Amino acid sequence: PGSLKLAVIPGDGIGQEVTAEALKVLEVAAPAGVKFEPTRYDLGAERYLATGEVLPDGVLEEIRAHDAILLGAVGGKPGDPNLPPGLLERGLLLRLRFELDHYVNLRPSRIFPGVTSPLAAPGDVDFVVVREGTEGPYTGNGGAIRVGTPAETATEVSITTAFGVERVVRDAFARAERRPRKKLTLIHKTNVLTYGGAVWSRIVKEVGAEHPDVTVDYLHIDAATIFMTTDPSRFDVIVTDNLFGDIITDLAAAVTGGIGLAASGNVNPDRTTPSMFEPVHGSAPDIAGQQKADPTAAILSAALLLDHLGHHAAAATIEEAVIADLAGRAGAEPRRTAAVGDAIAARVAG
Amino acid sequence: PGSLKLAVIPGDGIGQEVTAEALKVLEVAAPAGVKFEPTRYDLGAERYLATGEVLPDGVLEEIRAHDAILLGAVGGKPGDPNLPPGLLERGLLLRLRFELDHYVNLRPSRIFPGVTSPLAAPGDVDFVVVREGTEGPYTGNGGAIRVGTPAETATEVSITTAFGVERVVRDAFARAERRPRKKLTLIHKTNVLTYGGAVWSRIVKEVGAEHPDVTVDYLHIDAATIFMTTDPSRFDVIVTDNLFGDIITDLAAAVTGGIGLAASGNVNPDRTTPSMFEPVHGSAPDIAGQQKADPTAAILSAALLLDHLGHHAAAATIEEAVIADLAGRAGAEPRRTAAVGDAIAARVAG
Ligand SMILES: CC(C)[C@H](C(=O)O)[C@@H](O)C(=O)O
Ligand SMILES: CC(C)[C@H](C(=O)O)[C@@H](O)C(=O)O
Repeated sequence: PGSLKLAVIPGDGIGQEVTAEALKVLEVAAPAGVKFEPTRYDLGAERYLATGEVLPDGVLEEIRAHDAILLGAVGGKPGDPNLPPGLLERGLLLRLRFELDHYVNLRPSRIFPGVTSPLAAPGDVDFVVVREGTEGPYTGNGGAIRVGTPAETATEVSITTAFGVERVVRDAFARAERRPRKKLTLIHKTNVLTYGGAVWSRIVKEVGAEHPDVTVDYLHIDAATIFMTTDPSRFDVIVTDNLFGDIITDLAAAVTGGIGLAASGNVNPDRTTPSMFEPVHGSAPDIAGQQKADPTAAILSAALLLDHLGHHAAAATIEEAVIADLAGRAGAEPRRTAAVGDAIAARVAG
Repeated sequence: PGSLKLAVIPGDGIGQEVTAEALKVLEVAAPAGVKFEPTRYDLGAERYLATGEVLPDGVLEEIRAHDAILLGAVGGKPGDPNLPPGLLERGLLLRLRFELDHYVNLRPSRIFPGVTSPLAAPGDVDFVVVREGTEGPYTGNGGAIRVGTPAETATEVSITTAFGVERVVRDAFARAERRPRKKLTLIHKTNVLTYGGAVWSRIVKEVGAEHPDVTVDYLHIDAATIFMTTDPSRFDVIVTDNLFGDIITDLAAAVTGGIGLAASGNVNPDRTTPSMFEPVHGSAPDIAGQQKADPTAAILSAALLLDHLGHHAAAATIEEAVIADLAGRAGAEPRRTAAVGDAIAARVAG
């Protein structure tokens, strides 16, 4: 009850359009007595190109004072010579994830009724990936010497700590306990990345011993991509590191009907900072501003936001509205971004 | 002409069975006047468990004196407490790749007629992945402190050098030039792994300028997994680092009919060392010794071996025999490993 302060970062490209629809749906879904107070933060390629600013410290501190963050997408035109690769990703998106300690990157995957998978026989798919969000090769640790010469040498250091792994593994086991199948699959590459792999294996084993009713399974990331296309219904809860989680969730999105439907939450389960909700897709500059983007992933991300804030019924209402909307899509004309948002908002209201 | 010295490392599990069939086919495929002189090296889990030896220096030097290496698969029973994770992979398979400087890890992917893809509409798929084989996070550079404690911290360092990238990128462009579509796709994660990513981007651009008729494309590894399931026919030549290449080639194998058909070569294009040919699949201990494994990937790897040694017609004969065999498989009873080898050998002879 009361008012919920929402930091809204539409970001770049289609991030703008899909965020508008997510906000529209959030507003009608708000439980009685709850009012969203959105504050818009213009961050991303446009701001950087105009001002040189990516995420000023003062803005980060303002954002930190909110109850949750709704983000669209971050990333400029590929190959823009004024945008060094990764500058926005590292300086804005990853900086938010790291500074706000979003150690659970939550990415559910389901094949909703009526949605077409590129797989001939996907089966009954309903799993969630718990991707570690604050370690691995994402820390920015690394460097290069003799840059631009034939003797250039670059390094990237993947960091894995027992502290970081344990907290995300505990979260994943807790989720597995709440699901009917109670199955957890660790994905890594322990036969090559042996140092970090040993930490993941040990901690999954240790925490698993506290959860005797959860079935534990292990797959190398390469083998996991095979099962994701031949037998995706085998998965229930997947726990994995930051990079493997990035890869497997895009593949999971493809298999379950496309990146236009894949929602995610960057969650701090300790609730010491605002969690951040965003579609898995990028800013898609090629179709930006044309009302062609599917806002469903952003809308489902808003449902994850409500769920995280404890408004489970409101979250479920959005999800049901999306499911109903999806069921009617097959064979229908493609709609404008706003029309999809309107239709889902109407179902939520109705 | 003359005799070709072949180091044969069947390795573990089904590696034994599939290598026997690959050798069978190689012998009948040998061009007139060419005789294979195979020397068998028993390396892998069994040898290690019996003797503690993984790859003795003397054995490595013996292997080095051969014209080529045929390898089955390496890896013990998952979770065997006597086999530290990665010990055989790092100590045997990766050691061979690194010591023999197999910088081009060549992995062709094609949907052969009659083969079923898990994709509903895969299209006409025929591409080759040129995976870097001697750098990236595969170097073994890394370590851990406070092992086994709640304060454990582990690192893995990915190493990318302009030297290492340039030679593999040149190889990939040369391959693209020889193919009708002349298209090259770089796969990386340049927006997060910015140091190594900058090396790949720069060198693909530089070498690309020398190949104006090759179309160059870039995909992040996460997006690449999407296209691999929604539009795999878009790919022609893929060039990528060691880890992303590991992941995308397993996915490619799945999409093109399964890991039972995926061949690979660990190639030193400078021919200063013997190149090594192996199926992409692992040792599959669960079905080992049961004559259930499909030897097709090993047989196609033998064709890559012949091709590498300059026996292009003999290589093509094996490939045609495999294609004919595959065309007859749909709906037929599964055959024993040796029966598949016999059938393909008969076609080659025939
Ligand atoms: C934009 C990029 C930095 C990001 C990531 O790699 O995490 C994206 O791919 C994602 O999955 O949210
Ligand atoms: C066994 C393993 C070390 C190896 C790799 O990761 O390269 C395998 O997966 C492969 O693709 O050949």
